[in-house]
Amino acid sequence: MNYGIILASGKGTRVKDGNNLPKQFRLINNKPIIIYTLLKFLKIKKFDLIYVCVAEEYLDYTTKLIDNYIENKSKIKITCGGKERIDTITNAINAIIKDNGCGNDDIVVIHDAVRPFVTDKILIDSIEGAKKYNAVVCAIPMVDTLLFSKNKNVVEQIPNRDYYYKGQAPDSFKLPVFVELLNKLSKEERKNVTGTSQICTMNNYPIHMIEGDEQNFKITTKSDFILAESMIKGSDIQ
Amino acid sequence: MNYGIILASGKGTRVKDGNNLPKQFRLINNKPIIIYTLLKFLKIKKFDLIYVCVAEEYLDYTTKLIDNYIENKSKIKITCGGKERIDTITNAINAIIKDNGCGNDDIVVIHDAVRPFVTDKILIDSIEGAKKYNAVVCAIPMVDTLLFSKNKNVVEQIPNRDYYYKGQAPDSFKLPVFVELLNKLSKEERKNVTGTSQICTMNNYPIHMIEGDEQNFKITTKSDFILAESMIKGSDIQ
Repeated sequence: MNYGIILASGKGTRVKDGNNLPKQFRLINNKPIIIYTLLKFLKIKKFDLIYVCVAEEYLDYTTKLIDNYIENKSKIKITCGGKERIDTITNAINAIIKDNGCGNDDIVVIHDAVRPFVTDKILIDSIEGAKKYNAVVCAIPMVDTLLFSKNKNVVEQIPNRDYYYKGQAPDSFKLPVFVELLNKLSKEERKNVTGTSQICTMNNYPIHMIEGDEQNFKITTKSDFILAESMIKGSDIQ
Repeated sequence: MNYGIILASGKGTRVKDGNNLPKQFRLINNKPIIIYTLLKFLKIKKFDLIYVCVAEEYLDYTTKLIDNYIENKSKIKITCGGKERIDTITNAINAIIKDNGCGNDDIVVIHDAVRPFVTDKILIDSIEGAKKYNAVVCAIPMVDTLLFSKNKNVVEQIPNRDYYYKGQAPDSFKLPVFVELLNKLSKEERKNVTGTSQICTMNNYPIHMIEGDEQNFKITTKSDFILAESMIKGSDIQ
């Protein structure tokens, strides 16, 4: 089985415009961002089930949203997120295993609700990549000048940016491999995890990169919203 | 004396829309990008002269543009760019010294024409920073997940992004210090320089960071144009 996991339990409302709805529920062109993302997953027939993880207080809200915007809901499951990203992921994995067991060849593709421009290619490459390599992350080359400074003051080094990539989402895994990696994390490590792919590197487990896309950006700031709006309204973005 | 240097000799036409004009000359809301950038510098009274560096074939074109869009041109000098960024910078420095000599306290603030959203604060901090520290670069904290991979395949490390910054422009220097650093570069080093601040790190010369701004982005792709257009048309970007 191939599972999509859409993380949507963030409460970030960094876009300051008097609207207190978390970003993933904000409307762009009359449709919530999370719905765009969910529709991208639903389009890929290789996904058997898609778990949408939201904060407890948004469970009903999300159920209603999905009822409103999506006709065929048979592949969608809504689960309750946790306090931190790692807790939300753990809850989703537990829900999947409780519902369906844990097959050796099962794949989880873990994505952010606020990256609605994920492409078909990325989703398919994620499934295929996880089948082949057990663990993959979607990444794009670093194009900015990188400055290294531990003292936050003087540039100590300008690393060769050819060796650096920007990690996007999704991160994708063979389910039993991922469960093992999750279980191996110490309490301290769990506390320090900031991203999904770190669950691999903390365990010295190799995670392969698959090719991301500039389009697959995370909607965070107001300028991201403006860009997202232009994209959704049909601009041909390079 | 405080000099602004606006680098505009790039011939990049990466935005594919049948328009072959280099990016810095493209119109946004009926005004070329380079004019927005130049106006930002002209607004700062601390600048005594502003050197605009363009490719030879655009010298006349730029002169006419400036005639068309800018009333008081007394502070503007147009100079001829070189083959690579480092050559353009060298030409600008030579032009400044030829015209005005090289004072111990002279400052050069070196900026990209395609970063029209540079703020007053950044420009003033650049002048003051260069006076205090001799060499400063404008930088913002890294917010993306950083992946390190030499083999372009497997993630070897997820560096702590707290130690990494994205370098923007301007880079600013005491003029005589910068001239010395430039002259010290070997032929090989000159060939390998990709950014201005590297001229310091190649010489093991400390370059301090001043606080940049997300707004001060480089217009490169079509999505950058869309965002720039929204910003110029008056959107309140966070």
